Amino acid sequence: MPLTAALMFLINGEHRDSLPAGDRGLHYGDGLFETVAVIDGRPQHWQAHLRRMEDGCVRLKIPFPGAAMLEDEFGRLPSPAGRWVLKIIVTRGGGGRGYRPPPVVQPARLLCQYPWPDYPDDRAVQGVRVRLCTTRLGSNPLLAGIKHLNRLEQVMARSEWNDPAIAEGLMLGLDGNLVSGTMSNLFLVSQGRVRTPGLSQAGVAGVMRDQVIEACRRLNLPVETGAFGVKELQRAEEIFLTNSLIGIWPVIEIAGASGGEMQPGPITRTLRTHMLELEALPQHG
Amino acid sequence: MPLTAALMFLINGEHRDSLPAGDRGLHYGDGLFETVAVIDGRPQHWQAHLRRMEDGCVRLKIPFPGAAMLEDEFGRLPSPAGRWVLKIIVTRGGGGRGYRPPPVVQPARLLCQYPWPDYPDDRAVQGVRVRLCTTRLGSNPLLAGIKHLNRLEQVMARSEWNDPAIAEGLMLGLDGNLVSGTMSNLFLVSQGRVRTPGLSQAGVAGVMRDQVIEACRRLNLPVETGAFGVKELQRAEEIFLTNSLIGIWPVIEIAGASGGEMQPGPITRTLRTHMLELEALPQHG
Repeated sequence: MPLTAALMFLINGEHRDSLPAGDRGLHYGDGLFETVAVIDGRPQHWQAHLRRMEDGCVRLKIPFPGAAMLEDEFGRLPSPAGRWVLKIIVTRGGGGRGYRPPPVVQPARLLCQYPWPDYPDDRAVQGVRVRLCTTRLGSNPLLAGIKHLNRLEQVMARSEWNDPAIAEGLMLGLDGNLVSGTMSNLFLVSQGRVRTPGLSQAGVAGVMRDQVIEACRRLNLPVETGAFGVKELQRAEEIFLTNSLIGIWPVIEIAGASGGEMQPGPITRTLRTHMLELEALPQHG
Repeated sequence: MPLTAALMFLINGEHRDSLPAGDRGLHYGDGLFETVAVIDGRPQHWQAHLRRMEDGCVRLKIPFPGAAMLEDEFGRLPSPAGRWVLKIIVTRGGGGRGYRPPPVVQPARLLCQYPWPDYPDDRAVQGVRVRLCTTRLGSNPLLAGIKHLNRLEQVMARSEWNDPAIAEGLMLGLDGNLVSGTMSNLFLVSQGRVRTPGLSQAGVAGVMRDQVIEACRRLNLPVETGAFGVKELQRAEEIFLTNSLIGIWPVIEIAGASGGEMQPGPITRTLRTHMLELEALPQHG
């Protein structure tokens, strides 16, 4: 098994490895998180991660601990050369039994240092196989887009398969339209247009998803969000996945679906090359 | 403010007040819980709580720690005379970053001892005022009914009001039908029939809800589950709420809705009297 346990935690500014048992993050999933690629000491897309976390805090009415404090605490983690993963969790803190938030919220913050995942780097070039998950994503406009801690749907979807040749599972919403992968955002390329599911009902507004949309605009590639079903997936000329750690993974096969194997396509490659030049992907070269 | 902080935690059999920071209950809400009324040392409806927790573990594929172990650990908490609240949390334990459950799951268990909430006992007799929440409950058949740790919707709903005269908020599903209160199940009485929303899409299958349904059957009161909207709520002859701590609360007013104040109705009173005789409610007398 790969080493995935945390190397170190910084909890409310202290080096500890445990959290108060009354924390609302545990009791209700009452909080949010960010997963950040750190390369040679530099957290990638740092401002975008902080901005998304602040937006999520506003929507969940959790006081945002502030960019300065998180940046200071990031600096207190050892930062070896090479790549590692920073996970930041902010919860509504303690406050007693019951769903009602306490009148004065003292959010808890956890900075967690993890080893870089053992994904083969050539996935970004060779592409990956994916599957369609049975587990659906529920709808909730109030929570859609937020990277919150209520992630049982993703856990159940990810538990559907063990085959290491399948790199990711795609998830549908209740309406039968595509939303995302279990841990990634999804893009299709159809007739030269780059398309990604809208996130008004479910899903996480990924930092890398935004970066790709921006890159499309810079490259004058038509890009649109909308509702796309399995039919659009099967007809797509190119498919790729994004997140902050994987960057861009071309999809070359959907297990069980007709169509067989594809090659990573030209638009996916163009986007990847452009973003590598900008050092906007966690792979170099 | 009422005292709501935990008096004591027993975590994996040890008296501690903190949990490993890598626990999946915190990271993903990957676990479930029970809230049990304890009266004079006796956990109420203990077998029903254990059964529901085991059912939830099966559905989430978390190994159930076993009734014997939980019962043993319950016995290791101090148990003062009178009433207190036992909250049991079972999570999928640790296992590294990423949604994928570890190949060998070592579930974590927390027994939390809380003071009895400061609800006025006369609410069970006089009834309560409620409101309709704006926050909707998302749909997910896979998770519906389970008392899992993904509770942001309830937290957001409960944060909608601060008026202490409003005891509970009612929540609708995405289809506009009633599901439950934020912390309770909902019953309507219409033309002599006892009705409660079905829980195939959302909501928690409450232990007290089951007790009330059983009581209806014993009393030969027609009882049915189904889809009921706000119209049925407004036309209902009686409305009441249930959970393991409140027992049965008659609803006497829906704030903001037409219709004004009602009195607790005869069927609600009959059910309450019957269940008090069986000592099936956490109020005596």
